[in-house]
Amino acid sequence: MSKTNPGNFFEDFYVGQVIRHATPRTITEGDCALYTALYGSRFAVQSSAAFARALNYPAAPVDDLLVFHIVFGKTVPDISLNAVANLGYAGGRFLAPVYPGDSLSAVSEVIGLKENSNGKTGVVYVRSTGYKDDGTEVLDYVRWVMVRKRDPSAPAPMPVVPDLPDAISPDALGDACPLIDHAAWDTDLSGAPHRFGDYVAGERIDHVDGMTVEEAEHQIATRLYQNTAKVHFNQHSEGQGRFGRRLIYGGHVISLARALSFNGLANAFHVAGINAGRHVAPLFAGDTVFAWSEVLETSNISGRDDVGAVRLRTLATKDRPCADFPGNGADGAYDPAVILDFDYWALMPK
Amino acid sequence: MSKTNPGNFFEDFYVGQVIRHATPRTITEGDCALYTALYGSRFAVQSSAAFARALNYPAAPVDDLLVFHIVFGKTVPDISLNAVANLGYAGGRFLAPVYPGDSLSAVSEVIGLKENSNGKTGVVYVRSTGYKDDGTEVLDYVRWVMVRKRDPSAPAPMPVVPDLPDAISPDALGDACPLIDHAAWDTDLSGAPHRFGDYVAGERIDHVDGMTVEEAEHQIATRLYQNTAKVHFNQHSEGQGRFGRRLIYGGHVISLARALSFNGLANAFHVAGINAGRHVAPLFAGDTVFAWSEVLETSNISGRDDVGAVRLRTLATKDRPCADFPGNGADGAYDPAVILDFDYWALMPK
Amino acid sequence: MSKTNPGNFFEDFYVGQVIRHATPRTITEGDCALYTALYGSRFAVQSSAAFARALNYPAAPVDDLLVFHIVFGKTVPDISLNAVANLGYAGGRFLAPVYPGDSLSAVSEVIGLKENSNGKTGVVYVRSTGYKDDGTEVLDYVRWVMVRKRDPSAPAPMPVVPDLPDAISPDALGDACPLIDHAAWDTDLSGAPHRFGDYVAGERIDHVDGMTVEEAEHQIATRLYQNTAKVHFNQHSEGQGRFGRRLIYGGHVISLARALSFNGLANAFHVAGINAGRHVAPLFAGDTVFAWSEVLETSNISGRDDVGAVRLRTLATKDRPCADFPGNGADGAYDPAVILDFDYWALMPK
Repeated sequence: MSKTNPGNFFEDFYVGQVIRHATPRTITEGDCALYTALYGSRFAVQSSAAFARALNYPAAPVDDLLVFHIVFGKTVPDISLNAVANLGYAGGRFLAPVYPGDSLSAVSEVIGLKENSNGKTGVVYVRSTGYKDDGTEVLDYVRWVMVRKRDPSAPAPMPVVPDLPDAISPDALGDACPLIDHAAWDTDLSGAPHRFGDYVAGERIDHVDGMTVEEAEHQIATRLYQNTAKVHFNQHSEGQGRFGRRLIYGGHVISLARALSFNGLANAFHVAGINAGRHVAPLFAGDTVFAWSEVLETSNISGRDDVGAVRLRTLATKDRPCADFPGNGADGAYDPAVILDFDYWALMPK
Repeated sequence: MSKTNPGNFFEDFYVGQVIRHATPRTITEGDCALYTALYGSRFAVQSSAAFARALNYPAAPVDDLLVFHIVFGKTVPDISLNAVANLGYAGGRFLAPVYPGDSLSAVSEVIGLKENSNGKTGVVYVRSTGYKDDGTEVLDYVRWVMVRKRDPSAPAPMPVVPDLPDAISPDALGDACPLIDHAAWDTDLSGAPHRFGDYVAGERIDHVDGMTVEEAEHQIATRLYQNTAKVHFNQHSEGQGRFGRRLIYGGHVISLARALSFNGLANAFHVAGINAGRHVAPLFAGDTVFAWSEVLETSNISGRDDVGAVRLRTLATKDRPCADFPGNGADGAYDPAVILDFDYWALMPK
Repeated sequence: MSKTNPGNFFEDFYVGQVIRHATPRTITEGDCALYTALYGSRFAVQSSAAFARALNYPAAPVDDLLVFHIVFGKTVPDISLNAVANLGYAGGRFLAPVYPGDSLSAVSEVIGLKENSNGKTGVVYVRSTGYKDDGTEVLDYVRWVMVRKRDPSAPAPMPVVPDLPDAISPDALGDACPLIDHAAWDTDLSGAPHRFGDYVAGERIDHVDGMTVEEAEHQIATRLYQNTAKVHFNQHSEGQGRFGRRLIYGGHVISLARALSFNGLANAFHVAGINAGRHVAPLFAGDTVFAWSEVLETSNISGRDDVGAVRLRTLATKDRPCADFPGNGADGAYDPAVILDFDYWALMPK
């Protein structure tokens, strides 16, 4: 029997299956420095221990999306090594702050399965949870992926499609953000005067700047997350594949869009929940990423006077500035430049 | 009103204006590792805590130019987002050592303004200061940039051109270097036998080695410094611009030249002052950087027997080795390969 | 006399010569994060402090090959700046664990010299030792390089060729691995169920995955190691040279192969000895690296019940998957895709 991991195929999954993932990972200041260098993120709480401590954090927390990518990376060898496509995310919550020195692991539970009508692939729904070595859960989220069958003649499982929330309830947000001293929030240092109360539903913000992606950058990022999906790294095989080139990890696009969104959302310091996410089209090296956001709603969080929640829909494009807010039309069809449609909750100081 | 930062235009500045910059930043060992990886710097004091402690440092200090780049990066969104060119530096002093864990912020004061005769741009002079969260100043320097006017019909301000020193006085140097035990300086470990007394004014040193720059490298560096100047990152817009490609951050060239200068200046361990700096021509990815230095003068520092100051003029070229010391002729015109002319004070052990 | 380092030429070396190398280097969590980002290594002991502590390590140790590269890098300016080729390695032992915060230096002793019959070059054999600032030795190994003569008419030295072991004796292994609590080894977290007892001599393992290398990546890695060999960095000169392009540091290939080998050798957590290594052919940016391993032998280590030693021969190829185990035939000639033949001892939990 081979000692190499072939990954799981569609027929290897069953509803209720629980998979403990390799490899545990201690996040360090080195990882945080690399994250800054890869995206240029400028949110003050994650950038400065002094800024964070003034608010009541014990230290600068690790960027939420770095936590997400590291937890996600662990799931790849077991869940999506034989995936055709990463279809979507939902129900993501950040449950505890993560600091340098914390060791993270991940576990996934299969919560849904549905074979496609072609008999060659099926959709696998998993809820993945990241936790510290003391058991503290730091993140959980659902994703669904289209996975190949090893044997097309294998029988289809009973279809189970989980009931996923359209959005996280605002009152389920904030566990990863300590009560902060919002009077100590210095808007000169944070980069913009606009606080929670300055944003209104329906508002659209063009993030203006563009960022071109290089092969070395997305590979360095994706390896940092110990994400082993072959399509990101192997030009020898991808050169003969569907696109003729390496595909950039979708999470890299999310982080780029989030970093670009600083210009307009400088005080949206914490990603508290992921409502929905879809990689509309692939990104390749050499492409330039732009982004814009719409405020979908704003909400208080019961029991908290320090921060409010802003629900944002951020769209990223490639090689197309977003001054005119390209999205999808009434027919649902996206502008061909759109690559990401990401719906999340951010916290902002009051 | 837009929530995105359009940057300041020439008519937004006034002499005496003080701007507190975002984003505060804690420098970590992760940043230092990236700095080493991006330039290959080998100065022993910054490389080894053991070497530094033997001299009397409490720990390995952060490379002076990393401090410079991080302070500089903070000033970009407020000072030079609409700049046409970064014209020069002067009067730079390193005022306190910086160690991993220190949180830095920056503030700038406008000290000069002069509209250009074309009425479309003007020169803005700022003194920028970097400081720790306890208020300790770590660096100040003057730079001047050519900035676009938003409205060419806006009236010109009264011209104010600051009186800038040709060079920092040697007695103003050394605040960022503790008194060191120079007898403990191990020249085998530091990489060369030549100490302060071995350098004489007029001496020229070819640093021999060349370093080719890749797009991913300068982007990673410039994002690490949270420098947001668009020209470094956005191929979509730069491809349609003046050069047809991304322009490399001038500070990247300074750091490359400084790292190359180890070969010939291995014991010039600390950049104590920046007298003058000029980016003579742009650098692009794929170009190979070379450098040479001339010793302009050497000086004792009053009250210190441990170190002396060596004033160096370092020139960097692209795609041209420097064995014959390419510079500028009697007419001031530079060899077309020259990209940087940098005049600084370094400390060396006696 | 020039202050730049021209490197040593063949006639500058003599048997018995001891060279203390610059630059001392403190390894930090930043270096470890970069190492992960450059290779995507996933061995659990080095990845997670929690996993390491559960076994009896005081912290997550630094990856053995990162230690190797940093020690190796120090030797370059003195040993191989004028090298034509890095011919081989032997007799490498890891002697003490290295943790972030440790400061390393290196010393080499010349143990052999043999001029080539062309009179223009000669082979230099050195034993290089890396040690912490408290004197603890962490690594020693022999390498031999072909070095140019400065003056072809210089007389040839008496040839001395050291007697090198074919392999490190298993009982000389393990000093860099504390006694571990192997019952605490969690094979879900480590990524595979196969322990020491599951591997048998003669077994071949295709590591399946491929990794394409970019110029920025190998340059960042090689500078991180403060390795100054010109061929890796200077496209201006290399473009006119033998290959027309930059040559990738051979150690980069070793680390890529080792990281790829996780798929099949997930529990081979520690490189304890280097028996032999040969860079069969050069690697260039754009090439995709694959690898496979053969188990040469397995051995208990006297006095230890916690771990056993597996002797592995790992071959790396470029642009050629390894499902059919390309190597060298009975005539010794390698498949043209092979770039590395590396024979080492790894420890695995019992």
